[in-house]
Amino acid sequence: MGTLAVVGGGAIGQGVAWRAAEAGWSVTLFDPAPGSGASWVAGGMLAPLSEGWPGEDRVLEFGAAALARWPEFAARLQAATGVDVLVAAETLTVALDAADAADLRTIADWVGGRALATAVDHDLRVLDRAGVRALEPALARTVRAGLLAAAEPAIDNRRLLDGLRKAGAEAGVRLRSEAVAHLDDLDFDQIVLAAGAASARLLPGLPVRPVKGEILRLRHRPGATPVPHRVIRARVHGRAVYLVPRGDGLVVGATQYEAGFDTTVTVGGVRDLIADAEAILPGIAEYELSEASAGSRPGTPDNLPLIGRHTDRIVVATGHGRNGMLTTPLTVDAVLGELAGTPLPAARSADPRRFSTPAAPAVPSSPGGIR
Amino acid sequence: MGTLAVVGGGAIGQGVAWRAAEAGWSVTLFDPAPGSGASWVAGGMLAPLSEGWPGEDRVLEFGAAALARWPEFAARLQAATGVDVLVAAETLTVALDAADAADLRTIADWVGGRALATAVDHDLRVLDRAGVRALEPALARTVRAGLLAAAEPAIDNRRLLDGLRKAGAEAGVRLRSEAVAHLDDLDFDQIVLAAGAASARLLPGLPVRPVKGEILRLRHRPGATPVPHRVIRARVHGRAVYLVPRGDGLVVGATQYEAGFDTTVTVGGVRDLIADAEAILPGIAEYELSEASAGSRPGTPDNLPLIGRHTDRIVVATGHGRNGMLTTPLTVDAVLGELAGTPLPAARSADPRRFSTPAAPAVPSSPGGIR
Repeated sequence: MGTLAVVGGGAIGQGVAWRAAEAGWSVTLFDPAPGSGASWVAGGMLAPLSEGWPGEDRVLEFGAAALARWPEFAARLQAATGVDVLVAAETLTVALDAADAADLRTIADWVGGRALATAVDHDLRVLDRAGVRALEPALARTVRAGLLAAAEPAIDNRRLLDGLRKAGAEAGVRLRSEAVAHLDDLDFDQIVLAAGAASARLLPGLPVRPVKGEILRLRHRPGATPVPHRVIRARVHGRAVYLVPRGDGLVVGATQYEAGFDTTVTVGGVRDLIADAEAILPGIAEYELSEASAGSRPGTPDNLPLIGRHTDRIVVATGHGRNGMLTTPLTVDAVLGELAGTPLPAARSADPRRFSTPAAPAVPSSPGGIR
Repeated sequence: MGTLAVVGGGAIGQGVAWRAAEAGWSVTLFDPAPGSGASWVAGGMLAPLSEGWPGEDRVLEFGAAALARWPEFAARLQAATGVDVLVAAETLTVALDAADAADLRTIADWVGGRALATAVDHDLRVLDRAGVRALEPALARTVRAGLLAAAEPAIDNRRLLDGLRKAGAEAGVRLRSEAVAHLDDLDFDQIVLAAGAASARLLPGLPVRPVKGEILRLRHRPGATPVPHRVIRARVHGRAVYLVPRGDGLVVGATQYEAGFDTTVTVGGVRDLIADAEAILPGIAEYELSEASAGSRPGTPDNLPLIGRHTDRIVVATGHGRNGMLTTPLTVDAVLGELAGTPLPAARSADPRRFSTPAAPAVPSSPGGIR
């Protein structure tokens, strides 16, 4: 044990700082505005099984391993702080046309048929029109099929940030509200770089880039359609949309653009999110539009993050793309393992050095849309 | 002269306070949050001529009188504070279908043919497709006709509030940031009630009610369609929409509901405003959606405001509906006239006592839509 600098105060940086402090490290967290980036904007959907697609074995295996670590992580956070982050227990993906309905069957067959290294319930249930209606009666009558993932919950990302901040402070994490210009400036025994999409500014050459996403927060109003019980996912006009329940409403996400570091909310983005969400849940016109925001996801070339040792003194934890919330517990465990000299086997596919060696084959990307 | 309490710190209350202080009154302005109500939410369109409709003679005459007082009011405010509130010089109403095009001709003929008591350029010019395109090339190709009002400018309502606040402070207006519970509590020689839609709470029976309106503020982004030079008005799917230029973007308004005191921004309201604005100016999808807000317009039964003496001690100035910005200069002059014992003839049709006497015939309302 010794001194540790964590650069970046999103969910992953704060999670690492908390757990490293508990493990005996003397931790300083650097961030000019902790918890204000992509982790704040996020929706909190944890759906690696529903997002499975034939050929993406490594992404599925990694996502399942991440999902499996959530219950213990959430329980530990609640024990430390009293903060309960869970907001839904299941995920329901719905299809509006025959092609999407066929895709749901493909996903169920493929994901259900894998022999996963992680013990997680990956038996996805295909539902017909009546089956969907019985679970979520407020959905549009045009919904013709569904895919129920009973093991995929959702969390409130803002409660998570609040809980992690409290847990870190309790464990002795020192916060320095400032930007880091160069990692060399940091006089610490070890450094964890968890600066999300901005990480490549501090480690040039790191294969991480910003992928812009816009998201809406809606508040339920008296008399409006009730909030669904489950996370609802769908593809509308070829665009992925998801609705994540909150105590008082819904989060609707998310657009996806390659737009550099741009967190402007556009008229077109809001228009598309509303239209797509309304196609799934017609009653939301009566909800309050309480927030529209945008963030920069840290994207990588192969849809797997970058977690592991970069040098003797630097560990990276970035590149989580759309799955930063899902992979927080696994990433925290993997970073703690690196710091202790015992790398986590489940995180091996996220080795940040994989792009500089000829070993690892590229993971094909999904046909898009529903992911 | 003596002591004066102005209740309500919107544009009208602040305008009255400023000018009354200049005239020698000892003025105290009461508002728990000055300049945060309907005046803050407004768009700033001044279009009484373009909104003319056969039969609405009194509304047109009143609006023209209000419009005619703007140049001097704006010049006086600029001289006092340096604040220039003008953001556009002309208003262009456009038609997307044959029925709307015919309505534009009806408006031009009727408004142009009136013998107005006020000297204002009310000669409206009907434009064909090419004529509209020559003026505003970014408008949708579906626009088939236009109506140009060369004498209808627009103002920036937030700059107006800023200027009025400065002018009032300079003139010696005292601000009390508190709500007034009863007018009887105010120990002043005279009281001006300018509390907008909330005025009936202080004077029960006053025929003013809240009419909810939602509005968007868009910011131009590099590469996006340029901001139009003029105010653009239209009817889309039977709903009125207007775009008011700003230095850095556009204001898009406005929905209209009878919803009580509710300033919640709804998903459906934002959806409709975006869709209607995009039908007129297709390039706005690339603009930033920088704000969505809602306010309570003070509506009256006949679309004319309530300006005049209520008792020996109380003057009312409310009920301005969608035209609070337009009618601010005229209202200020009318209130100053009442305080001086010389009522303004141009404001006679807004006498607040008109509903309690059998004299005044009701003004028919327009067929809706384009107003």
